[in-house]
Amino acid sequence: MIKAGIFGGTGYTGFELVKILQKHPSVEINFATSKSFAGQTLNEIYPSAPNLTLIDGDEAPLDSIDVAFLCLPHAAAAETAVKCLNAGVRVVDLSADFRIKDVDTYNNWYNHQHPAPHLLETAVYGLTECAREALPNTNLVATPGCYPTSILLPLMPILHSRYHIASPIIADAKSGISGAGRTPKQNTHFVEASNNFSPYKIGRTHRHLPEIEQVMNWWRPNSPQLIFSPHLLPVPRGILSTIYVTLNEAPNEAEVRELYGRYYQDESFVNVLPEGQLATLAHVTHTNKCVIGITVAGNSLILSSAIDNLQKGAAGQAVQNMNVMFGFDETSGLI
Amino acid sequence: MIKAGIFGGTGYTGFELVKILQKHPSVEINFATSKSFAGQTLNEIYPSAPNLTLIDGDEAPLDSIDVAFLCLPHAAAAETAVKCLNAGVRVVDLSADFRIKDVDTYNNWYNHQHPAPHLLETAVYGLTECAREALPNTNLVATPGCYPTSILLPLMPILHSRYHIASPIIADAKSGISGAGRTPKQNTHFVEASNNFSPYKIGRTHRHLPEIEQVMNWWRPNSPQLIFSPHLLPVPRGILSTIYVTLNEAPNEAEVRELYGRYYQDESFVNVLPEGQLATLAHVTHTNKCVIGITVAGNSLILSSAIDNLQKGAAGQAVQNMNVMFGFDETSGLI
Amino acid sequence: MIKAGIFGGTGYTGFELVKILQKHPSVEINFATSKSFAGQTLNEIYPSAPNLTLIDGDEAPLDSIDVAFLCLPHAAAAETAVKCLNAGVRVVDLSADFRIKDVDTYNNWYNHQHPAPHLLETAVYGLTECAREALPNTNLVATPGCYPTSILLPLMPILHSRYHIASPIIADAKSGISGAGRTPKQNTHFVEASNNFSPYKIGRTHRHLPEIEQVMNWWRPNSPQLIFSPHLLPVPRGILSTIYVTLNEAPNEAEVRELYGRYYQDESFVNVLPEGQLATLAHVTHTNKCVIGITVAGNSLILSSAIDNLQKGAAGQAVQNMNVMFGFDETSGLI
Amino acid sequence: MIKAGIFGGTGYTGFELVKILQKHPSVEINFATSKSFAGQTLNEIYPSAPNLTLIDGDEAPLDSIDVAFLCLPHAAAAETAVKCLNAGVRVVDLSADFRIKDVDTYNNWYNHQHPAPHLLETAVYGLTECAREALPNTNLVATPGCYPTSILLPLMPILHSRYHIASPIIADAKSGISGAGRTPKQNTHFVEASNNFSPYKIGRTHRHLPEIEQVMNWWRPNSPQLIFSPHLLPVPRGILSTIYVTLNEAPNEAEVRELYGRYYQDESFVNVLPEGQLATLAHVTHTNKCVIGITVAGNSLILSSAIDNLQKGAAGQAVQNMNVMFGFDETSGLI
Repeated sequence: MIKAGIFGGTGYTGFELVKILQKHPSVEINFATSKSFAGQTLNEIYPSAPNLTLIDGDEAPLDSIDVAFLCLPHAAAAETAVKCLNAGVRVVDLSADFRIKDVDTYNNWYNHQHPAPHLLETAVYGLTECAREALPNTNLVATPGCYPTSILLPLMPILHSRYHIASPIIADAKSGISGAGRTPKQNTHFVEASNNFSPYKIGRTHRHLPEIEQVMNWWRPNSPQLIFSPHLLPVPRGILSTIYVTLNEAPNEAEVRELYGRYYQDESFVNVLPEGQLATLAHVTHTNKCVIGITVAGNSLILSSAIDNLQKGAAGQAVQNMNVMFGFDETSGLI
Repeated sequence: MIKAGIFGGTGYTGFELVKILQKHPSVEINFATSKSFAGQTLNEIYPSAPNLTLIDGDEAPLDSIDVAFLCLPHAAAAETAVKCLNAGVRVVDLSADFRIKDVDTYNNWYNHQHPAPHLLETAVYGLTECAREALPNTNLVATPGCYPTSILLPLMPILHSRYHIASPIIADAKSGISGAGRTPKQNTHFVEASNNFSPYKIGRTHRHLPEIEQVMNWWRPNSPQLIFSPHLLPVPRGILSTIYVTLNEAPNEAEVRELYGRYYQDESFVNVLPEGQLATLAHVTHTNKCVIGITVAGNSLILSSAIDNLQKGAAGQAVQNMNVMFGFDETSGLI
Repeated sequence: MIKAGIFGGTGYTGFELVKILQKHPSVEINFATSKSFAGQTLNEIYPSAPNLTLIDGDEAPLDSIDVAFLCLPHAAAAETAVKCLNAGVRVVDLSADFRIKDVDTYNNWYNHQHPAPHLLETAVYGLTECAREALPNTNLVATPGCYPTSILLPLMPILHSRYHIASPIIADAKSGISGAGRTPKQNTHFVEASNNFSPYKIGRTHRHLPEIEQVMNWWRPNSPQLIFSPHLLPVPRGILSTIYVTLNEAPNEAEVRELYGRYYQDESFVNVLPEGQLATLAHVTHTNKCVIGITVAGNSLILSSAIDNLQKGAAGQAVQNMNVMFGFDETSGLI
Repeated sequence: MIKAGIFGGTGYTGFELVKILQKHPSVEINFATSKSFAGQTLNEIYPSAPNLTLIDGDEAPLDSIDVAFLCLPHAAAAETAVKCLNAGVRVVDLSADFRIKDVDTYNNWYNHQHPAPHLLETAVYGLTECAREALPNTNLVATPGCYPTSILLPLMPILHSRYHIASPIIADAKSGISGAGRTPKQNTHFVEASNNFSPYKIGRTHRHLPEIEQVMNWWRPNSPQLIFSPHLLPVPRGILSTIYVTLNEAPNEAEVRELYGRYYQDESFVNVLPEGQLATLAHVTHTNKCVIGITVAGNSLILSSAIDNLQKGAAGQAVQNMNVMFGFDETSGLI
């Protein structure tokens, strides 16, 4: 039984983490913090939450925990990570702070100086399916962004394959509204979001773009450019990405299926769907699963993928990473 | 062709008013005001709105208009009403400021001193169906609240009848989320409002209670007490009220139907539904209609009523009142 | 470890049961049946379901199971119950067949002759909170209807109290659309159900009325009449009931709270909410909980209650009953 | 004042047509037909509809109308068109029957023999913006499909330009659920469609593909191949298409904007959005508008377009075509 602290327990990701860890057989939540709600209980914020008193992050007893989950805004996360690591606490960060290796890229896209650039090199990029060897030996894991998870998992087999890919790869992604965070804004107002659907920051302008391209280039140097178009979808949770990969000749669908099937055959949380089935949110919401559908049309390979943005796209994958770090069964506490 | 100014053009009610007046054959919008968005155009706020530049309310040219619609917070509305009336502009107020005749009741429920109590007596309570005689001769009309409209129209015939009514009358009302206003709040966040349903201020605590009981007592002195339970419904617009009136003996349904049918037979915007049909939001959204369903069960008369809170519950009824004030066809510009 | 069979595994209730039992530490699902989908797997119907092959109910191996859950239409359920009982299998019925003790009442409301009236007397009405003594000794439990559960739990303490209650009690109930079943109908079409809200079978016409009144009269002979008004709510799951109990004098709120608090203090799945809090669907969806809010207004006691119709209103309570029948921890497998 | 008959008045498209024509200053609805509901009134089906008695299509008095709108299934539409034309009635068809010029293509994609291939040549493809010259002289217009309208309008300027386009063009389209028709199906059940999002018939398998490519090739012979991916969006109405056009070099955004701005400057129903704005459903629902957003990213031109599938995607464009056919103001009756 290890002990966990959750920094930033009141956002959607923090609350999802509480729900998962509550049922985890090997973890006990020692505390959850909140800047705005310190002193209140979590169920004053979420009626179905446990009666957990929130504490101020500055007063969190670091010596009482083995692992810290950081559901904090970027910059704040890095600062807390430093404190935790100095106190001997292993860190599962859910912010963007340790995802991008190149500090200039980070500084440009996130508009401030990285508070702890010396940690970038050792932080493990925690797309669990390709981080299993590194995780047990690290004290700092960067949980990937929700969109990157939904786009990288379906791209991994084809990028690792010998298929020649024409530029650009197009990822048309649609995210449920919890992806926009809990702070109420005009575009998340029920009256304006329901019955609506809208693209935003499309092309090459969303902060998840450099994160995705970084990993694509790890897997295939000189990867094609990515065109990434996020859309706001009127559902509470889930991301569906439709990804267009143009090859230099028409691929054989059976071969592609065989490539993907083999690639993910031993994975607990990645399912390649059988012929004729496409990814939908109904496959994955409230689970840590990623499902991948395969369609071939002309020279194009169309990958449809679905995840729950709060699970495999955030809290679920964070726990999956923690499981590997601490030597627990990788599926422990997860569905 | 008369000229209208809209004070507070950017809330949901203000925008609905713009949409109605744009198509009104006898009205031209001269200006719309906004505190927060002065200088911007309305379609920067609502993508489907016309390209109407918003002006500061303090700089509104009162001499250019015949009628002012006030979609302002209470207190601010009364202050603007005074200015307009002094400038010879007729006022259709959509706030709560002139609905309640008794200034102490108003002060208590709205927690401040009424800015213009001398106007309370002359203001006409604009439930159009019972205000037609007074409207042409007034310069100040108070458009009823959305819940009161949805509850008073179905209650009017029975309160005006000879049926003996046991205390209390119960109004279980469910409102779409636009009723909570455009300012984003936690409980109107899509993620928290969708898949949810919640009562609030139930019993005898909502500000619309004294307004409804005031009118009930005009119609039947010593009316029974009202228990009024509003609920937040995950739809953008519409109010459905289910109203329970217990009589001292089992009413004859045919007689009640005949009472209601006769009462509203000449009304353009109030429809008594045929036997076997109950009120639904689908009857009324995007129209100025109120539909009323009648059910008898034991000694209870159950009235179901539906309106669009932004139309008959606000902007639509405001225009209906203006039509009567200025001698236009009462249905002009309305559906 | 006991073995369970699910009859009618493809409806919303059957699928919810599969999800619960899959994670239950003491139960193994031996089979699930389906008339229309025999031979297919459950995940062909629900993409997130397990890969469970559905069998024809007539070919179900009754000797392989200890308990049968019946998620069948009425009449079919009673017939299957007889077969199971004859084969020595204990039965948790989720249909209406064994809820009503009086066979004439059943025949009238359900429009056919009860197929097994001799079982009515011994069947236990499984509102778990008041059936704990009888459950271990029965082989046949009738899981209450969803609306009855949401209305009876909040009524139980007041009916068992000494308060004098005026007639009628009014239950204004709102149910998510899964309550209407999985078969697609016009009123469950997304285009017609979203943005809509509608009452149906209000007054004294819904089949759950005699079930509720039967139990009310067990608890308080000569209970007041019930007016029961169901409404269709545009959410997938959850029931919120707002219940109006008029007393012969204004109740003291503290006393009522104390009555309810004491009554349910040891219950795992019934929570009486603290002052100022009302029941909402957000309290209960995806859990087996029932929450109850208390409001006093004049002589009226207003009880707001919320349950998940597929959990405490069906599959969850069925498992809770099974837990008690078989001597497991009552909360086993439930949240 | 001309007289219109609506064949198939009870589907979503037929009802939308009734709503538009009711307010049209130059058209009177003489009858609406229905196979399943003949003898009933339209407001028995749609509570907000007018009290219009539906007649059997076989008994429709063709001599009483000037124009027939066909909201019928394919094949049935062509057969009715023949009867109407023979009776001297002009036909606005909303089915797929006269959209595709090549009869073999039609037969293959629609799986039956075209009932009236001799009419294919003279039928006008009614994408109004490029059919204005032909419409006044035809008696038969084929209203384009909803997806084709949403994809062709944004593609028209670039296909008519000198830009070199790489293959394939990708259209990732998302449609509200009314696009799936009124007949209830499992995938349009509220419980299964809400909180979900799903691609279907993606790649080169949807029936609208040959229609779109036919028109693309009219505009630019040897147009690039189209990859067309429809998705089911949990909103009642609206289509948003995100279209990826890869050019052989990075386009200058100002030049592209100038091309599009000039192209559509005189159009009433096509709006090219200003820089920084993308198309959303909120721009267009309940209007006949198409809005187009322009984004340049690398060599890619990303066009976002939005229409209301029941208006510009069906009934609205049908009326727009009728307006041009009969010499009315093109915007008459439309918003």
